[in-house]
Amino acid sequence: MDNLPKCGANYVPLTPLTFLTRASKCYANRTSIIYGGVRFTWTQTYERCCRLASSLRSLNIVKNDVVSVLAPNVPAMYEMHFAVPMAGAVLNTINTRLDAKNIAVILKHSEAKVFFVDYEYLEIAKKALELLMMFDFGKSKTSDMPIMPLVVVIVDIYSRTGIRLGELEYEQLVHQGNPSYIPEEITDEWDPITLNYTSGTTSDPKGVVYSHRGAFLSTLSLILGWEMGTEPVYLWSLPMFHCNGWTFTWGIAARGGTNICIRNTTAQEMYTNIVSHNVTHMCCAPIVFNILLEAKPHEYRTITTRVQILTGGAPPPVPLLEKIERLGFHVVHAYGLTEATGPALVCEWQEKWNKLPSENQAKLKARQGVGILTLADVDVKIFKNMHSVPRDGKSIGEVCLRGSSIMKGYFKNEKANSEVFKNGWFFTGDVGVIHQDGYLEIKDRRKDVIISGGENISSIEVENVIMRHKNVLEASVVVMPHPRWGESPCAFVILTKNSSQVKEVDIIAHCRSNLPGFMVPKKVKFVEELPKTGTGKVQKHHLRAVAKTFVVLEKSNETSKKTSQVNKEKPRYYEQTREKILALSRL
Amino acid sequence: MDNLPKCGANYVPLTPLTFLTRASKCYANRTSIIYGGVRFTWTQTYERCCRLASSLRSLNIVKNDVVSVLAPNVPAMYEMHFAVPMAGAVLNTINTRLDAKNIAVILKHSEAKVFFVDYEYLEIAKKALELLMMFDFGKSKTSDMPIMPLVVVIVDIYSRTGIRLGELEYEQLVHQGNPSYIPEEITDEWDPITLNYTSGTTSDPKGVVYSHRGAFLSTLSLILGWEMGTEPVYLWSLPMFHCNGWTFTWGIAARGGTNICIRNTTAQEMYTNIVSHNVTHMCCAPIVFNILLEAKPHEYRTITTRVQILTGGAPPPVPLLEKIERLGFHVVHAYGLTEATGPALVCEWQEKWNKLPSENQAKLKARQGVGILTLADVDVKIFKNMHSVPRDGKSIGEVCLRGSSIMKGYFKNEKANSEVFKNGWFFTGDVGVIHQDGYLEIKDRRKDVIISGGENISSIEVENVIMRHKNVLEASVVVMPHPRWGESPCAFVILTKNSSQVKEVDIIAHCRSNLPGFMVPKKVKFVEELPKTGTGKVQKHHLRAVAKTFVVLEKSNETSKKTSQVNKEKPRYYEQTREKILALSRL
Repeated sequence: MDNLPKCGANYVPLTPLTFLTRASKCYANRTSIIYGGVRFTWTQTYERCCRLASSLRSLNIVKNDVVSVLAPNVPAMYEMHFAVPMAGAVLNTINTRLDAKNIAVILKHSEAKVFFVDYEYLEIAKKALELLMMFDFGKSKTSDMPIMPLVVVIVDIYSRTGIRLGELEYEQLVHQGNPSYIPEEITDEWDPITLNYTSGTTSDPKGVVYSHRGAFLSTLSLILGWEMGTEPVYLWSLPMFHCNGWTFTWGIAARGGTNICIRNTTAQEMYTNIVSHNVTHMCCAPIVFNILLEAKPHEYRTITTRVQILTGGAPPPVPLLEKIERLGFHVVHAYGLTEATGPALVCEWQEKWNKLPSENQAKLKARQGVGILTLADVDVKIFKNMHSVPRDGKSIGEVCLRGSSIMKGYFKNEKANSEVFKNGWFFTGDVGVIHQDGYLEIKDRRKDVIISGGENISSIEVENVIMRHKNVLEASVVVMPHPRWGESPCAFVILTKNSSQVKEVDIIAHCRSNLPGFMVPKKVKFVEELPKTGTGKVQKHHLRAVAKTFVVLEKSNETSKKTSQVNKEKPRYYEQTREKILALSRL
Repeated sequence: MDNLPKCGANYVPLTPLTFLTRASKCYANRTSIIYGGVRFTWTQTYERCCRLASSLRSLNIVKNDVVSVLAPNVPAMYEMHFAVPMAGAVLNTINTRLDAKNIAVILKHSEAKVFFVDYEYLEIAKKALELLMMFDFGKSKTSDMPIMPLVVVIVDIYSRTGIRLGELEYEQLVHQGNPSYIPEEITDEWDPITLNYTSGTTSDPKGVVYSHRGAFLSTLSLILGWEMGTEPVYLWSLPMFHCNGWTFTWGIAARGGTNICIRNTTAQEMYTNIVSHNVTHMCCAPIVFNILLEAKPHEYRTITTRVQILTGGAPPPVPLLEKIERLGFHVVHAYGLTEATGPALVCEWQEKWNKLPSENQAKLKARQGVGILTLADVDVKIFKNMHSVPRDGKSIGEVCLRGSSIMKGYFKNEKANSEVFKNGWFFTGDVGVIHQDGYLEIKDRRKDVIISGGENISSIEVENVIMRHKNVLEASVVVMPHPRWGESPCAFVILTKNSSQVKEVDIIAHCRSNLPGFMVPKKVKFVEELPKTGTGKVQKHHLRAVAKTFVVLEKSNETSKKTSQVNKEKPRYYEQTREKILALSRL
């Protein structure tokens, strides 16, 4: 019975490309894409992808070649998620918020053969290409000319401006292509489909490779985890360059839905499209909540049917969650990372929770939840011995994942691969706890955990408490070296407008009423803004560098006040002393 | 990039067993099973399965051994869907409606090592084992003693009666097993997980083998196709022995739902459980609709929240559909076959159809729909040249499938395998059409198609028309050899009570007003009941045998009346003549 052979009928390699073929047959005349005044059906989208794929082949793109793209959420960007692998190639979407240098590093590392650039990004792309040329020349004068990617311009398909003579253009490639092109057959589902760079650091670029199998399975799991029904109307508020739109590039084809493409995630564009097209689903970083909430009256539109939002990153605070839900959105919280093909855990809502007070609901909603179905296992392991932590909601450990959603690996980076793949697990670098009901809650990035007197402190937990202070707009907590405790928390805080009366002692007193003593920040620094990455994440390494300078100051304070005497005193007393010192040493 | 290796973290073989492990962790305290007064949580179900699996190992069950079971939808039957593969073995569920001989044939063909028998089926199992013993002796006196399976009795876990001394008993195996047993690791997702026999014909038993991969993928696809959300409360009205409960044995674990097990699909058991436990989903053959509709007042209960029903087989007629929906059920129609791991196409409902009149809705609902997501492709091919039919809702061809839902193959039956697997496709033996919107509609079993004067007649289409006659309860149409047309349709009809006034000419007249002439049955035979299989399918081969005898009669009639003269007349006239003859020759 185990010798029954695989054949073409019963063993078809898993690939999300089948979602498009299927959509073109089963949902032939349904609308696939709406972008301004442009509309396509699934038949048309399939045909356009065939055309583009055949044009790529005629540009000598072959199996496993990398095709890069720098573009916002326009139809071309969507189509390339199918067309590029249909030509056998690997799609590399580049974060549009990167600078020229980072783009150049990615183009070089990925060895991109073709580089599609939306007309809005031509300037930065040009600079990146100049840098790319210089990289290669700089290294070795004897080397060959650098192999520069062929550049294709994407002109806006709705308001067609900016075509220049002599340049290859996206629509031209689509137009010239063969509509009856037979897509490159995927014979091995382990073959690469996309390449996504996690960050633009020049020293160690990490190109995450997804397989056709992984992409297929993650797509199905996310539809299931979010309970997305058929015929969704999906607003592209999440950039497609984030883990291929958290797999929903492929997922909307699987569900026979409609993609609402938008060039900018402004309040106006989002509200107008939500209301005009009866959007049912959207994904976004929590920062988009603020954009929606801060819409000016002329930008705002009343939402009449509920819009499902899938969000990741730090759990939105309760008041924010309540505000956004009052507008007609329903938020589901997820946890993921590029290496896990986007969201890997989704906070599945339980019927019985509907009866709880909204404060409790928000707490439950802020948890990261349960692993999606293509994760074979999720575990939280104790750093020291790699045993699983008890499921008590308290014991902290590193979040480990295994299953079909996990990337093939980092491209040309064996060192990084050996660091994250250990003992049959992928180590996320995040720390968390598992609650008694099996739901996981992320506490921090492993490198952001503060170990104070042998106790683990989650910087996120401290941030959440500070954020609950009514005058606080934003907070970020990082490690600060400490002569006695090794490390201690240091908070950077943005106050709301007109809160100048709030002092450091107030924030510390607030923390003291809501946290165990060892978790209270030893230092609170008020700032005007926090350093952030292009994707809106706080760059804690910058803050850590600043926090280090505080310590030197404190050390000198300590010495001058001979606080080294307190070494044998009880922590509680010691903390009080320390705070007095801090109050004096306010920066 | 294509050389990045598979490792334990990123390549975990697909198996539905992970659904249970995951449920035991993520949905630990949620109710997994309710059966009468018995309740388990997902932690308990996992532990019980570990125990049973370890007991099977201690009974010397090893990798790929077959474990058979003859039981209704009791908790043991559910648990075995996990426990048996957790021991590395292959589960073979046997249709409880089969006779002793068919059971014996299956036990022999499958080479079952252990045979679990529910206490209600001990008598028939005993007979089957006696026959099994005889088979082997009968064949060769010199052969060794037949290897008889070890029998384990399943006593009812709720009302524990009937334990006999000296017999192995299910609960005893669970009790004695090791709760910390580590399940057999699935290293190859292509390994077999279950073995399901399509029919009990002695000549050519067809044991359909599913792989872990196929079971995993089909399960996900069906949850998606039916849009089953999290925490379903699933009533086991469909026997688990049908394609492993159309994969919902595994699917309810994947969704963290609750299984409502029932021993008998009586109206009372179904209504009581639906209302007591707020059932959300159930699957069934259309015959169950009649059971629900014909409930006596004391059996009936008012349903307050809508119950989703997934049904297969012949599309239920409009009035039946309307009646069942009025009771609080919502019917989704699917098409499947054992070889495709149960339902392979689901009639996905489209929003815009809600605006249509109910008659039109029912017609759309009766179509089989679109292939589930793990089918890479569905096609309808013209018999002669294997080209795809045009998508016009008219052109008939054979339904062909390919993808991960298709079985590994028939166990020890190379001939049958070579018949169904051709050119990378699985040939279903069903004929259908594809509508312009991409939805497939099954017209008939290929062998039931009637080819009359070169025209294909779908027996189902004729049946549907006859069924619309207000005095008709049931109808079945088969081929009848015909001297002029080669073949022609013959109808067997059950009339509703008190319809003795209805004559054959009335039915024929009704058909004539609703069908093209060539499709009108040349003979209508009123019967008291139709021969059916254990699963409620009409055994058309019996009817065909009867229909053959009609022809002989007609031939002699023809001869006596010299109707051979009419050979050159126009069909229309010929048919009228034929009907007069038929009216005279009523049987």
